[in-house]
Amino acid sequence: MTSAPTSPLTDPWPKSPVLQTAYRARAAAVDLAPLPRALKDDALLAMADALEVRTKEIVEANATDVERAREAGTSEAIVDRLTLTPERVRAIASDVRDVVALPDPVGEVVRGSTLPNGIDLRQVRVPLGVVGIIYEARPNVTVDAAALCLKSGNAVLLRGSSSAYHSNSALVKVLRDAVGGAGLPADAIQLVPGESRESVRELMRARGLVDVLIPRGGASLIRTVVEESTVPVIETGTGNCHVYVDAQADLDMAVDILVNSKAQRPSVCNAAETLLVHQDIAAEFLPRALEALAAAGVTVHADERVQALAEAEGTKATVVPAAMEDWETEYLSYDIAAAVVDSLEAAVNHIGLWSSGHTEAIVTTSQAAARRFTQLVDSTTVAVNASTRFTDGSQFGFGAEIGISTQKLHARGPMGLPELTSTKYIVTGDGHTR
Amino acid sequence: MTSAPTSPLTDPWPKSPVLQTAYRARAAAVDLAPLPRALKDDALLAMADALEVRTKEIVEANATDVERAREAGTSEAIVDRLTLTPERVRAIASDVRDVVALPDPVGEVVRGSTLPNGIDLRQVRVPLGVVGIIYEARPNVTVDAAALCLKSGNAVLLRGSSSAYHSNSALVKVLRDAVGGAGLPADAIQLVPGESRESVRELMRARGLVDVLIPRGGASLIRTVVEESTVPVIETGTGNCHVYVDAQADLDMAVDILVNSKAQRPSVCNAAETLLVHQDIAAEFLPRALEALAAAGVTVHADERVQALAEAEGTKATVVPAAMEDWETEYLSYDIAAAVVDSLEAAVNHIGLWSSGHTEAIVTTSQAAARRFTQLVDSTTVAVNASTRFTDGSQFGFGAEIGISTQKLHARGPMGLPELTSTKYIVTGDGHTR
Repeated sequence: MTSAPTSPLTDPWPKSPVLQTAYRARAAAVDLAPLPRALKDDALLAMADALEVRTKEIVEANATDVERAREAGTSEAIVDRLTLTPERVRAIASDVRDVVALPDPVGEVVRGSTLPNGIDLRQVRVPLGVVGIIYEARPNVTVDAAALCLKSGNAVLLRGSSSAYHSNSALVKVLRDAVGGAGLPADAIQLVPGESRESVRELMRARGLVDVLIPRGGASLIRTVVEESTVPVIETGTGNCHVYVDAQADLDMAVDILVNSKAQRPSVCNAAETLLVHQDIAAEFLPRALEALAAAGVTVHADERVQALAEAEGTKATVVPAAMEDWETEYLSYDIAAAVVDSLEAAVNHIGLWSSGHTEAIVTTSQAAARRFTQLVDSTTVAVNASTRFTDGSQFGFGAEIGISTQKLHARGPMGLPELTSTKYIVTGDGHTR
Repeated sequence: MTSAPTSPLTDPWPKSPVLQTAYRARAAAVDLAPLPRALKDDALLAMADALEVRTKEIVEANATDVERAREAGTSEAIVDRLTLTPERVRAIASDVRDVVALPDPVGEVVRGSTLPNGIDLRQVRVPLGVVGIIYEARPNVTVDAAALCLKSGNAVLLRGSSSAYHSNSALVKVLRDAVGGAGLPADAIQLVPGESRESVRELMRARGLVDVLIPRGGASLIRTVVEESTVPVIETGTGNCHVYVDAQADLDMAVDILVNSKAQRPSVCNAAETLLVHQDIAAEFLPRALEALAAAGVTVHADERVQALAEAEGTKATVVPAAMEDWETEYLSYDIAAAVVDSLEAAVNHIGLWSSGHTEAIVTTSQAAARRFTQLVDSTTVAVNASTRFTDGSQFGFGAEIGISTQKLHARGPMGLPELTSTKYIVTGDGHTR
């Protein structure tokens, strides 16, 4: 019996370094939540300045990671993603300043009314609390995520790849110093300690301490987090995107959209992975499409009908037979699966069976087909006469993106600052009772 | 290799009856999603009519459950919640007609703009897909949930208590017949087969088939679902709600709000469970509060300072010493914990430590205190000079409620029809590429 009960959260103080980190994040989140925008923006500007002033120590720490990666025989593409140069650090600092310019989502009134009994009801945005980000070898994510979480009033727990450990440690040290120097709790930004898988497991089981986990990376990372986490998860990023060319379509436009969707940047989640062509237009469209894909260096994994047309026309495209798994593959390379479908509905069914629900595009001149396709296809984004590559926070005008949710709960599609918030209701009366 | 690939969902058709049910729900959800409101409303009206026409078979099936419950020695309170009379069936049918009158959330444009490149961007509400409801012995939930899910374009999987099995079977049969008769897929409404815990486990692991699980019931049911489910869960309903009486408060109002919050209906989640009183007003307020609580039949579990005041005043209230666990207990009975706090901040800290984050009320005449309390308290609902009992979908004007979310992701607070939806983005261009 006591009138000053001790906390169920801090007593006993946990032995696990991961949980200690989470407890400190929780305390920081309580302090951050009511802060007005101006104080958060000051801290963000201090972060950007500190990144520029302390570029040398960041680049040096990064050099250790790069050296270790090279010694481990890591591919040059991944080494390149890992590498920080002074120019890249400046670009990262500039991204932080862009976040300063974005509106603060916290406090936004989402819904409000006066109820029949005279009570004033308002639903307002509040921070989520503690956000955990689990990601792979990209040090820029460390800063991006920290900036977006701070702006939205959240504490962040960062769990990057062990291959970027020195880079991330240096970046987080710089950011924490800047945040603390600006008078905000440095524990709002923390690296999850430990390089083992066990530390990730602890983070995934810290329900009640961590409000949401956002895994950013390959499909197997995301699947592991989704299956093992008791903390709520926002699934991101797997994109088996489709381009469907309808019976009535502007063929120049269709070729442009197809090639842009597939080949403008094949390594990203909003790149197209499957082409579906209506049978009525296949004989006219496919020769041109295959030639354009070949010119862009794309290998086509074709169903029997596409193969037959390719052989008849003798197109220069690299065409190989599609196997069952091609329909569900996210190539992330200069490869595309291709099939002829009997109808728009067949295209929709194919997408319903195989798509990861990220982005699907239709190219059509028919208003009825555009309407039907957008009604029936259930993905985060349905594009009409536009490339799949537009599914992106900055393209959508959100100014920043913490990831692209491919799940239906909480957020779907590119997630900006509002998606890093929850809401609460404020009920104001004059002594109202029921 | 094939141009008409078989579905990864239906091939092989699963042996488990639970998964078969989920597959059928998924197919029904695909059919429901694009349906316009008028067709869904027709089906809802047919459901309401059928409940009235077939009241006799529903009440007879219910009699079997009631008889078994009595034989098992179930408390009369629970038997009462289980019992269906012709009047109650009529009331349930009337609730379905109320859902007809609500706007359809599907298709609502949440956000829309023309991007700098001329692309039109719209974010529109779409159904979640398949919603699973796991609930306890209240047959009215069966019909409520089915009606709300159908209206929002979702298929529903209902997993009620085995003690209501005959009642739920009869209700679902009537509803399915009505939905099928109206030309909609009857599989939009299904009972999860099996009365064992294993069938619940299967439902909880059906990620990819079931889009969200909403457990409605006691704390242990909800905890099990949250911990074991790989399907995303919306946590509902646990309410350890607080009433804080500030240093400056209208004492008549404070007594009214306290008694209403605690005693108007103690068995519900928005009833108050803890009273916190600022030390400056405790000597004046507590004697009146304890007397009013005693008159309402409430036992007060008091900290030392409340006990001391109660003894000094010799109030008639039933006052017992509080133990540590009282601060976290959701009594759901004529009991309340009570403590004196040093300041508004101390009240906020107490709430931060012990509250389940449902609803907290402040009674104050101070604008500054009201503002600070609503800023600092992080619960689904913060009430100023109003009873905690207003946190409720119909009180908030939502017209219906599928539950009260106490989590931060997706939905927080009372959930109406919009909370049963996700969104998708529609991107419309004229051949736009990046």
